[in-house]
Amino acid sequence: MNKQLILQKRPEGLPTKDTWELRETPIPTIQDGEYLVQLHYISLDPAMRGWINETKSYIEPVALGDVMRAGSVGKVIESKHKGYTKGDLVYGMGGVQQYTVGKDPSWFKLVPDMVPMPVYTGTLGMPGLTAYFGLLEVGKIKEGDRVLVSGAAGAVGSIVGQIAKIKGCTVIGIAGGPDKCKYIVDELGFDGAIDYKNENIRTALKEKCPKGIDVYFDNVGGEILDAALAILRRKARVVICGAISQYNNKKIEGPSNYLSLLVNRATMEGFVIFDYAKDYGKGAMEMAQWIAEGKLKSKEHICEGIENFHETFLRLFNGDKMGKLVLKVIEEA
Amino acid sequence: MNKQLILQKRPEGLPTKDTWELRETPIPTIQDGEYLVQLHYISLDPAMRGWINETKSYIEPVALGDVMRAGSVGKVIESKHKGYTKGDLVYGMGGVQQYTVGKDPSWFKLVPDMVPMPVYTGTLGMPGLTAYFGLLEVGKIKEGDRVLVSGAAGAVGSIVGQIAKIKGCTVIGIAGGPDKCKYIVDELGFDGAIDYKNENIRTALKEKCPKGIDVYFDNVGGEILDAALAILRRKARVVICGAISQYNNKKIEGPSNYLSLLVNRATMEGFVIFDYAKDYGKGAMEMAQWIAEGKLKSKEHICEGIENFHETFLRLFNGDKMGKLVLKVIEEA
Repeated sequence: MNKQLILQKRPEGLPTKDTWELRETPIPTIQDGEYLVQLHYISLDPAMRGWINETKSYIEPVALGDVMRAGSVGKVIESKHKGYTKGDLVYGMGGVQQYTVGKDPSWFKLVPDMVPMPVYTGTLGMPGLTAYFGLLEVGKIKEGDRVLVSGAAGAVGSIVGQIAKIKGCTVIGIAGGPDKCKYIVDELGFDGAIDYKNENIRTALKEKCPKGIDVYFDNVGGEILDAALAILRRKARVVICGAISQYNNKKIEGPSNYLSLLVNRATMEGFVIFDYAKDYGKGAMEMAQWIAEGKLKSKEHICEGIENFHETFLRLFNGDKMGKLVLKVIEEA
Repeated sequence: MNKQLILQKRPEGLPTKDTWELRETPIPTIQDGEYLVQLHYISLDPAMRGWINETKSYIEPVALGDVMRAGSVGKVIESKHKGYTKGDLVYGMGGVQQYTVGKDPSWFKLVPDMVPMPVYTGTLGMPGLTAYFGLLEVGKIKEGDRVLVSGAAGAVGSIVGQIAKIKGCTVIGIAGGPDKCKYIVDELGFDGAIDYKNENIRTALKEKCPKGIDVYFDNVGGEILDAALAILRRKARVVICGAISQYNNKKIEGPSNYLSLLVNRATMEGFVIFDYAKDYGKGAMEMAQWIAEGKLKSKEHICEGIENFHETFLRLFNGDKMGKLVLKVIEEA
């Protein structure tokens, strides 16, 4: 049987247990031109919260009654498609379920054994690519820049900071709690960390970024965005990647310090990773090279069992995780 | 005697009568290397509100007890400086007063009789240059763009809209009241106008900009900025020029729709006109040419008497003016 997680209700605020429903259906059969994918790891990402709102943003909402949308890594276990062979390792938007039918060309074929399977949902998947293109193409970092990143121990932020270090920048990360702060400095090589749960963010920013910042990579929004805007340097770039502090709010809190953009001749720019699809391969290969050279570290927080999807999902918002959050739904063979 | 307007108190919110004090001092005498300027027209601009706050922004605050800072147009009436001759028409930061001493190279020499004197504080002065460089260099407009501008009947907005039309864009202006709306459409050639005082801004924007906007030139901030963010097209540019709705507020209202930048891969960018100083001449000459050809129209709202500075200044914020606000302090000879 195929266990699937169905979107049952649109939540207001944080999803509750009855937002979703687990369903069992027969494993699908394939037609000519199709292939069957067995999913092993489901990617859990803050953006998923936006996908279950009623309103369209950069992507259509998940319809009520549909399988919850998610990125996933799996293997082709049966194929009637000439481009795919049994045993192929693949990444695609498989949803929160155990099996799905693939039709060309929606699944990427991955190079097996280059990195552990879950890394393809993180550093070599959407979050890593989001960090890569957001920092290099939107943030336009150059050697010597002072870079600040929020959500710094997370799947995107941890890669942002490490790439900035590789490129010769000074990097300060904002994360929640002493463990995460210690991790990004001691293990990932950030120049400093700010614990937003235990420090006054404005005081800490003045101390850790006394000369201001050239680039702020924002994953959180809210008062941290406001505090970062207050210390922009001339011609600074603010990269709007996400706003996890606001996703469960009915009314988004706008950055009241936005006039700092005027005073400092600065730019605030948003982006959507899908726009860089044609360069995914190039970005992923460069990051794989950095991983092989030991310059880029990747950490996954792996939970198990599709039954535990809801509790796992909440970890995205309560911060109870370290690294890229992944749900294992079928054991690797 | 020289009548001067002194900054007496820092206001909270809208300035009050006792924010300023009128003082009479002897007309200054000049030393070698100096020249005496008689001021005729003082420029009144929303940015002046920011200059009397205690906090530094892109420029030092006016000190208590100092003459209020302002742009001005006048004539050299005595000179001991080889670069300036009696009779020279000049523009500079002369302050709200009738006479001041100039030292090279802080005063620009103007071409006399090209346009009426007050136009040098508006269309061929800071507001016009702000429109010119903000729209062309920051907004990066191109033919066919859909452009929205707020404060559209004002000194900056009226020029923004006309330049956008010259460059082949579709232009909608937001202004307060039916007279201003009629003026920008009938006299300045805008494609449409929205009266924010009498229309629901969101409904009106949907009607007048059914396909969204490529460029929003913002002079006002607040809920109009939010409404504009909601209709950005892919890769739109939001030019942050000012925020007149917020200048008298203690707490600035941030744009809660800022995540539209992400969804639409859009940019919000601030600028300060001083950065374009080396190109002022080029910009002013191109605009003078457009004026001569009848493509660019300029309107000044001229009030008289330095004694009336305070009441005149308030017109910037209550909207009771049409075009560039100027205070005549000495009759032209």
